[in-house]
Amino acid sequence: MDAEHFRDFGKAAVDYIADYHESLRNRSVLPNVQPGYLGELLPEDPPQSGESWQDILQDVDKFIMPGLTHWQSPNFHAYYPTASSFPSIVGELIIAGFGMVGLSWIASPAMTELEVVMMNWLGRMLELPEEFLNCSEGPGGGVIQGSASEATYVALLTAKEKKVKDLLEKNSNLTEAEIKGKLVAYSSDQSNSSVEKSGLLGSMKMRLLPTNKEGQLTGATLQEAIKRDKEAGLIPCYVVANLGTTPTCAFDNLEELGPVCNREDVWLHVDAAYAGTAFVCPEYRYLMKGVEMSDSFNVNLHKWMLVNFDCSAMWIKNAKYLVEAFNVERIYLKDQHKGLAPEYRHWQISLGRRFRALKVWFVLRIYGVEGVRKHVRHQIALAQYFAELVAKDQRFECCSCSMGLVTFRLKGENSLTETLLNRLTEEKKFFLIAGHFNNTYVIRYAICSRLTEKEDVDRSWNEIIRIAGNIVPWKITEKEGLPGLNINHLNENIEKSK
Amino acid sequence: MDAEHFRDFGKAAVDYIADYHESLRNRSVLPNVQPGYLGELLPEDPPQSGESWQDILQDVDKFIMPGLTHWQSPNFHAYYPTASSFPSIVGELIIAGFGMVGLSWIASPAMTELEVVMMNWLGRMLELPEEFLNCSEGPGGGVIQGSASEATYVALLTAKEKKVKDLLEKNSNLTEAEIKGKLVAYSSDQSNSSVEKSGLLGSMKMRLLPTNKEGQLTGATLQEAIKRDKEAGLIPCYVVANLGTTPTCAFDNLEELGPVCNREDVWLHVDAAYAGTAFVCPEYRYLMKGVEMSDSFNVNLHKWMLVNFDCSAMWIKNAKYLVEAFNVERIYLKDQHKGLAPEYRHWQISLGRRFRALKVWFVLRIYGVEGVRKHVRHQIALAQYFAELVAKDQRFECCSCSMGLVTFRLKGENSLTETLLNRLTEEKKFFLIAGHFNNTYVIRYAICSRLTEKEDVDRSWNEIIRIAGNIVPWKITEKEGLPGLNINHLNENIEKSK
Repeated sequence: MDAEHFRDFGKAAVDYIADYHESLRNRSVLPNVQPGYLGELLPEDPPQSGESWQDILQDVDKFIMPGLTHWQSPNFHAYYPTASSFPSIVGELIIAGFGMVGLSWIASPAMTELEVVMMNWLGRMLELPEEFLNCSEGPGGGVIQGSASEATYVALLTAKEKKVKDLLEKNSNLTEAEIKGKLVAYSSDQSNSSVEKSGLLGSMKMRLLPTNKEGQLTGATLQEAIKRDKEAGLIPCYVVANLGTTPTCAFDNLEELGPVCNREDVWLHVDAAYAGTAFVCPEYRYLMKGVEMSDSFNVNLHKWMLVNFDCSAMWIKNAKYLVEAFNVERIYLKDQHKGLAPEYRHWQISLGRRFRALKVWFVLRIYGVEGVRKHVRHQIALAQYFAELVAKDQRFECCSCSMGLVTFRLKGENSLTETLLNRLTEEKKFFLIAGHFNNTYVIRYAICSRLTEKEDVDRSWNEIIRIAGNIVPWKITEKEGLPGLNINHLNENIEKSK
Repeated sequence: MDAEHFRDFGKAAVDYIADYHESLRNRSVLPNVQPGYLGELLPEDPPQSGESWQDILQDVDKFIMPGLTHWQSPNFHAYYPTASSFPSIVGELIIAGFGMVGLSWIASPAMTELEVVMMNWLGRMLELPEEFLNCSEGPGGGVIQGSASEATYVALLTAKEKKVKDLLEKNSNLTEAEIKGKLVAYSSDQSNSSVEKSGLLGSMKMRLLPTNKEGQLTGATLQEAIKRDKEAGLIPCYVVANLGTTPTCAFDNLEELGPVCNREDVWLHVDAAYAGTAFVCPEYRYLMKGVEMSDSFNVNLHKWMLVNFDCSAMWIKNAKYLVEAFNVERIYLKDQHKGLAPEYRHWQISLGRRFRALKVWFVLRIYGVEGVRKHVRHQIALAQYFAELVAKDQRFECCSCSMGLVTFRLKGENSLTETLLNRLTEEKKFFLIAGHFNNTYVIRYAICSRLTEKEDVDRSWNEIIRIAGNIVPWKITEKEGLPGLNINHLNENIEKSK
């Protein structure tokens, strides 16, 4: 395929994507296929000779499209959002067009340089402590990782190396292997599966501590767990605090956890994968109070900041620890820029890296800080509106409402709510998923798509109550909504943030 | 930005990329910028309000372009190739346009399904043993990882979990921590830095064993090292064999290493990151003889198979070990398809995954198997042609020529070759890097770009001998070339593979 054919193919693909986004509202969000469907449709072997791009684009529509779950549909309310925006899509196109791998500064200087600038921009947008930024005097800095999983894991490995080194330097009577066998990490029972996995991968005991009724890990619980472990001869090493848990978007109290970690010399990593983007808005920054006591901080721009997956922003207060843990030099990677520009390969698991900073640049410039704030506020306003609809219906309980996520259930046995979710899922028009909260079965309703509007929320709520009507055919009386919320006021919020 | 603006922006970006590729031959391959250049040109903070896409595309040209190292330039001969092809670029565009994250089968069935089919296609193209494929009866299977680093590391962690479990089940008198402290991994001193890093990250001693004069790890060397470690009470666990080393593209002898690993119950991982693509051509498959004795196998499609970074194909003979090592379930990831389709999140480090199979599909269909073979053969023919040019010049030694990689040096002191490389690099027209081979300093010349042709090779050679003429002003007498090579015959090969 030469450049001329690429011009035609590429432009046809741009139109295909634009048409797709314009058609999203009318598609069933869940596909109607069975495991193994595609293996039966495609040939067992690749073609010997090349085929035309027109055939392939047609086959995308014929074979792939029916098997997609439409994450960008306004009716997608599962998990958390996966960001997508047009500037970011074009960013990915140009990244691919350049076709570079950033395995060192010289391997493409602009890649490293733009990442440094973007991590500074982002750090200032979120009002992170200055010492976390590349532009600060000290050893702090930001880097783009692929995912929160990677960030959590990289921080764990760094904490481990630091702890082992510290203890060996203090002439511990333990060998390196003995120290490693005694290390313990902590997070809450509300943390994402990737936190538990990081312990598994990094061979470190990971205690998932109980949370309070609001789903938060408290300082007292952490202190107690550390005390018990120290008494048993173990070595506390690493804590993952959640700012926005996966089940209910609860916020751990950093002002309580920070002093415990600092006192006990334990690495404190903050996982703000989804909710971190909200700190772009000054009114939510109180939720990260105490962040200056943490050692590393992560927010997935690919969740809520309109940058396509993958793009996870991570800052480290002292990047020296990380570089020391991961540095493996070779002559073909000879580093001639020590100190003047970071060599990001030492900040991550893999050697190679993509030019992800470019799509961040596109998004921040085309939306501007105000555009990102609007997006966040609009999604929160829609979630609060949904929560109020739930709360005003006597058959339902609204269990939590935080940022763009609402959890709710039918009053009574869990099985009622389970039936409701199953029937809703069978229809494939809306995608919501189950969760657990305070030992009850709940449904999670997240505002995910950039395209979701009040009318979409209404439509999904009408479908929910239609199905609920067949499960609990009680007489409906309107009841008081949530304290502090009011439909008229919420409508105003939604309009304002458009 | 709405869909209409995206159509304009996206199409302008397609033209920008096409123009860029058409201009590559005339650009200096290395940029003329200093560390920190971009921080001085861009504002310290992001804009408050959004800007126009026209301004941003102009700024890409103004600020980013001058800081790029042009990996796709026909004059780029550093490292190894990073693949780029037009079908793959369009693939990336559509992947971004869909905006999905494959964290489970239901999160977008077509993502998992197409990956299964593509890994079968690829496995057959390379003629891997059937038991490695998803379509086989047994527990084998293929998965797309981000990079060879990830694949090497995932295999190491799996080997570690398997070994610990096996020993604990056999009622070893060692604790888990004691076992982990005694595990040892092996590779050769020619292996990529990512192999050493995998040991560092996975807390496993990694021995980089000496190679023979051809840069190969032999069975006898491995057997001896294992014997010594066992005598010292250590536990051999993991071996990384190289099919195509980074310094000279040397091939370890799997027929020797395989039996040692199988006898000693050590996990054998094959890193064929670059050269693995050559096994698409039947005439090179003899180089992977013995592959059936390995436990896992990796080839970076983003190196030589025309698929853009990142895309690394990995197969595992018994995927059960991997899934057991990495499985962390949650209610929001409830798996309803056990056994019918793989849940790939258990096969990798991160939870989320991109729809990389789509770009593989595009490349294999638009090139066809024959197109990929042609590409491989053409690049090998060009490398052999360059090697012959070197060998026929009495001032030079051609140290190695394997696949698309040649290493060479000026006869005499290392400093002569170093001077040659430094002067060449200062001119920025060609990008070659240094290497070590048999304790001498060599220059690596890799055929990287899809666009490189015989005329480009001639141009770079002419530049090399022009500079060399100032360093070693000897009289030039043509001498015998490499045994088995002949310029006329090589010219024919180049023509045939066009």
